[in-house]
Amino acid sequence: MSIDRAALADLACGAAFLGSGGGGDPYYSRLLGEAELARIDAFELIPLDSLADDALVVPCGWIGAPTVSVEKLPSGREALAGLRRLEKELGRPIDAVLPIEIGGGNGLAPLVSAARMGVPVVDADGMGRAFPESQMAIFNIHGLSACPSVLTAACGSLTVIETDDNLTHERIARSLAVALGGIAHMVEYPLSGRQAKDHAIGGSVSAAIAIGAAIRTAREAGDDPFEALFAALRLTGLYPYAGALFDGKIVDLERETRGGFSVGRVVIEGFGGVGRMEMEFQNENLIARRNGVVCAMVPDILTVMDRETADSITTERLKYGQRVKVVGAAAPAVLREARALAFVGPEAFGFEDAYRPIELLNGWGDG
Amino acid sequence: MSIDRAALADLACGAAFLGSGGGGDPYYSRLLGEAELARIDAFELIPLDSLADDALVVPCGWIGAPTVSVEKLPSGREALAGLRRLEKELGRPIDAVLPIEIGGGNGLAPLVSAARMGVPVVDADGMGRAFPESQMAIFNIHGLSACPSVLTAACGSLTVIETDDNLTHERIARSLAVALGGIAHMVEYPLSGRQAKDHAIGGSVSAAIAIGAAIRTAREAGDDPFEALFAALRLTGLYPYAGALFDGKIVDLERETRGGFSVGRVVIEGFGGVGRMEMEFQNENLIARRNGVVCAMVPDILTVMDRETADSITTERLKYGQRVKVVGAAAPAVLREARALAFVGPEAFGFEDAYRPIELLNGWGDG
Repeated sequence: MSIDRAALADLACGAAFLGSGGGGDPYYSRLLGEAELARIDAFELIPLDSLADDALVVPCGWIGAPTVSVEKLPSGREALAGLRRLEKELGRPIDAVLPIEIGGGNGLAPLVSAARMGVPVVDADGMGRAFPESQMAIFNIHGLSACPSVLTAACGSLTVIETDDNLTHERIARSLAVALGGIAHMVEYPLSGRQAKDHAIGGSVSAAIAIGAAIRTAREAGDDPFEALFAALRLTGLYPYAGALFDGKIVDLERETRGGFSVGRVVIEGFGGVGRMEMEFQNENLIARRNGVVCAMVPDILTVMDRETADSITTERLKYGQRVKVVGAAAPAVLREARALAFVGPEAFGFEDAYRPIELLNGWGDG
Repeated sequence: MSIDRAALADLACGAAFLGSGGGGDPYYSRLLGEAELARIDAFELIPLDSLADDALVVPCGWIGAPTVSVEKLPSGREALAGLRRLEKELGRPIDAVLPIEIGGGNGLAPLVSAARMGVPVVDADGMGRAFPESQMAIFNIHGLSACPSVLTAACGSLTVIETDDNLTHERIARSLAVALGGIAHMVEYPLSGRQAKDHAIGGSVSAAIAIGAAIRTAREAGDDPFEALFAALRLTGLYPYAGALFDGKIVDLERETRGGFSVGRVVIEGFGGVGRMEMEFQNENLIARRNGVVCAMVPDILTVMDRETADSITTERLKYGQRVKVVGAAAPAVLREARALAFVGPEAFGFEDAYRPIELLNGWGDG
């Protein structure tokens, strides 16, 4: 499958939704992708199961606070420098690249990286959405090592990290991202084709494109883009339940850049003063309470969208007074297993609430 | 020249003085050195000018807050892992090792590292004393690159750093040291033999041994160890002026571990309440004011010593009530050049005072 300019726009739209508020604003990544499409006809997307078992497949993306990434632009050389250095480290060429997370800008950025390397992008990712920390990747959950990893920054600096412990790896990478200005590019969890096939979340890139296409088509036809989104999510097979959680206006917002993250809390008041939703975020939206009762929690997807256009609003773009619809979707099943919840469930983020699936909390479908 | 158990003890004593309060307490390094001497007869120390021009010579030492290093012990594998990784990085074996700084524990630690590698230690160092930051090494002052460098920590993690900018290198390394518990081992500024001969501060290891020997001999003979120290410093040729700056009791001490450093301020009151000295430190003692007037400043050496035993007291060992003598010595001439003062003079540490030599401030000798 190839990704042309139109598909890139759909991918940007779909990845913005799957980012659950995070992964970075896809706007710049889309512009960089369009610039790259002036040089090549299309990006090459290959199915996960087409990988040879002994291929070298490399997840990559940006690490840091999205609040920084909208102001501090990349040099444009980070990804290629990191990927080339990993090739040197492993003594062999990289065969394909995949997004470490399908959410936000990180769902798109690897397209350009792959094109510069002359390799395809795999239709898969490491999170099935976006998460703020490296050890939240499915590869760590399934026991694979993040190392060697390569972190590169706009200033031209490069760091190769080796450690057996993926939590230490996250701590090292985060401190580097902070020291280097708040945002850096990382190539991590180098995989064999076999490991990618066994562990990556397959089909998520094409799922994001389908989601974006559904929203676009509905808009063009004058249909409800939200209903189109919900249907498209279910159709992917990865996100079996989806629906609206709240409708209202942002009346309170706290957000700060702390420890290499954008962290905060947003309050949305229902129209006519009816009801209230509070959400907490760490790059990504983590938990939503509707009139004081939890109605969605990590790892399920929780995205604030413009209620007129159905554009997803990343956490760093939230503003007082925005009229929004809060949309939720079930996370891919592998993220709901007990071994996954230990890393990406509410308790992993410091909440006291045990995980409950979004479809149960909201009485959706047969959930 | 070989360094046996007796010379190791003298080196520990001399390096403690030259550390200007920093470089880490030499006690553990001495114990580790003694343990190594159970395996080998002596450490091999070679003159700087014996290096082949094309040799690979590598400075190394510990980076972080000395306050941490006295509580958090090394795994013992850090130095060897870092040196071996640098060999892999450069594709050739290391021919010799030298201390990045001759002060404190860092003046001794490379002996064990070299012995484990089976290579000699060069009678030279990169600072002629100890300084808190990597870019304060003479190699940076003279325009050489710190990279590739390798940082290793007790947890087994390893990081290779590549950047053109030595200030960025310090920022990266410092943030890693903090993330890894406050202390880490670093191999940096890999040098050719030619570069080492052109830029390293030669003779500083044997100078530290001579200083320690002079103090020991004076103690054994019942002579004044301070007078012996001053004479020994002048004899080295590296430290042409030395003398006592103040005598008194520590009456106030502020010290915190911040940003990967041990920073603070100590106040010493003269006996009988006569006079007062205030000193500020960042790992190392930086500036001393006697009755409000500056009497010593970086890069000159400024060390607090036990007034009875002439033991040097590193900044992390300062305590309320200690009866001390504050001793100063002129820094090696290369550290007093304008290009050096930009990195190691008082303004580089945020003081408003321009540098003035210690011998002028105190009317010593022909200064």
